[in-house]
Amino acid sequence: MFAFERPVRFEDVDAARIVFFPRFFHYAHEAMEAFFDRLDGGYHGLVITRQVGLPAVHVEADFKSPLRYGDRVRVGVVIEKVGTTSLTLRFDMTRIAGNVPVATLRHVVVSTDLGAMKSTPFPDDVRRLVEAAMAAGPSEP
Amino acid sequence: MFAFERPVRFEDVDAARIVFFPRFFHYAHEAMEAFFDRLDGGYHGLVITRQVGLPAVHVEADFKSPLRYGDRVRVGVVIEKVGTTSLTLRFDMTRIAGNVPVATLRHVVVSTDLGAMKSTPFPDDVRRLVEAAMAAGPSEP
Amino acid sequence: MFAFERPVRFEDVDAARIVFFPRFFHYAHEAMEAFFDRLDGGYHGLVITRQVGLPAVHVEADFKSPLRYGDRVRVGVVIEKVGTTSLTLRFDMTRIAGNVPVATLRHVVVSTDLGAMKSTPFPDDVRRLVEAAMAAGPSEP
Amino acid sequence: MFAFERPVRFEDVDAARIVFFPRFFHYAHEAMEAFFDRLDGGYHGLVITRQVGLPAVHVEADFKSPLRYGDRVRVGVVIEKVGTTSLTLRFDMTRIAGNVPVATLRHVVVSTDLGAMKSTPFPDDVRRLVEAAMAAGPSEP
Repeated sequence: MFAFERPVRFEDVDAARIVFFPRFFHYAHEAMEAFFDRLDGGYHGLVITRQVGLPAVHVEADFKSPLRYGDRVRVGVVIEKVGTTSLTLRFDMTRIAGNVPVATLRHVVVSTDLGAMKSTPFPDDVRRLVEAAMAAGPSEP
Repeated sequence: MFAFERPVRFEDVDAARIVFFPRFFHYAHEAMEAFFDRLDGGYHGLVITRQVGLPAVHVEADFKSPLRYGDRVRVGVVIEKVGTTSLTLRFDMTRIAGNVPVATLRHVVVSTDLGAMKSTPFPDDVRRLVEAAMAAGPSEP
Repeated sequence: MFAFERPVRFEDVDAARIVFFPRFFHYAHEAMEAFFDRLDGGYHGLVITRQVGLPAVHVEADFKSPLRYGDRVRVGVVIEKVGTTSLTLRFDMTRIAGNVPVATLRHVVVSTDLGAMKSTPFPDDVRRLVEAAMAAGPSEP
Repeated sequence: MFAFERPVRFEDVDAARIVFFPRFFHYAHEAMEAFFDRLDGGYHGLVITRQVGLPAVHVEADFKSPLRYGDRVRVGVVIEKVGTTSLTLRFDMTRIAGNVPVATLRHVVVSTDLGAMKSTPFPDDVRRLVEAAMAAGPSEP
């Protein structure tokens, strides 16, 4: 499984001293960027040069345990479903110390021509990357 | 229905020039704060003085239309369900120009003793405020 | 003096439980947006429609007292200097409870053609607004 | 010289499509955290366990060239001055592609007992790390 790690930053917590819940979606988006950075030109090239974006049409999150400043989080990226223009990604987040599950998020994103702001089939290299990840499955370390 | 308005800020958009989707959860949280600011002492008093927080255990969002810099958004707050310790809030977001629906979000939050980090029944004034909003219903302008 | 008010938000604080210092620049930018929103078309119209931006070339801040969640802050905007293409704004920030000075910030911004990314003289309406504020002076309540 | 690298994130830019200037202070703070992570227990241990923080009393920035989504930035950390309780750090930021200077920032921070919120002499290990960096000087690669 593709995985991404990052620290909880000083400014990621809120007045209750735990990571402010919308930031989990930031972490998921960073993991998605890292996943697609393996494309030629990276995620940046896809969005800026090729003008194909992956805006979310649906997202959801289940929170199991809080994260605090000083924790490190591991984000496993699982492809749950892929269609012609849409894709469901799951993000399994774990606090690295103790290997504690902290959250599961899902993003349904749509391949979008950013010029026309209309859906467009996934470019071939995107599809290949996604299908390879699905074939590898979540059990891949 | 309780409603909250705010502009899309200069820094709320991303490299695709639309509001970065996790910020919709910020907007919802601001609306929730405004909802509970009608408590004596405000939401701040609940969290900091009384040490009762409302962390989310589940959130979800459906995105219908993008928001851009310069738009104003109206967030209607609907109480969908209330139990002893948990609460489901719905946030209906509308771009004010044209009255266009942009997103629907749901937060399931749990009344939590922030000292012990354990669930605790809603304080009476919180329950009263929530039940009054439920009774008023979403049709209240 | 033109003034802008806003609450310290739940997510504005950091792991030391005080407002994370870069957010003071967000507050100043919000105040600057509010200042220029009195233009026809607002600050948004200036940046997006007319493609004239005011990027900062120099900023500085002196921090005197921390802000915490639950505080409200008042941002007074003072025009210190105006040239053909550049402008120095000072932001005097005060915690409203107790009228305590918390920070003074300065932004030097340059009138910029965002298409060419080159400096350009201030548009007439911008200059008029700025000069009127200078003439009114900081002693205006 | 101690250096830290990071990408410009998708959400770091603003409606003018360049990195929103307060985020340069975030980048500087991340570099400062990375600098002090070489302490036993890391920056996190200093702030949370030992309750010694380094809040800024003065910061400034000169911006030379914009950063955009897809750029990578290198932040060189230079210790300019150290006293008993205060420290001046300089952050030299460079766009890695082309080695273009983008900004220079300075932070004056004060060693602070976060319990009492009063200044306190730098702990010995902090002083040693800072003095070693000063002795090494900016010319160290």
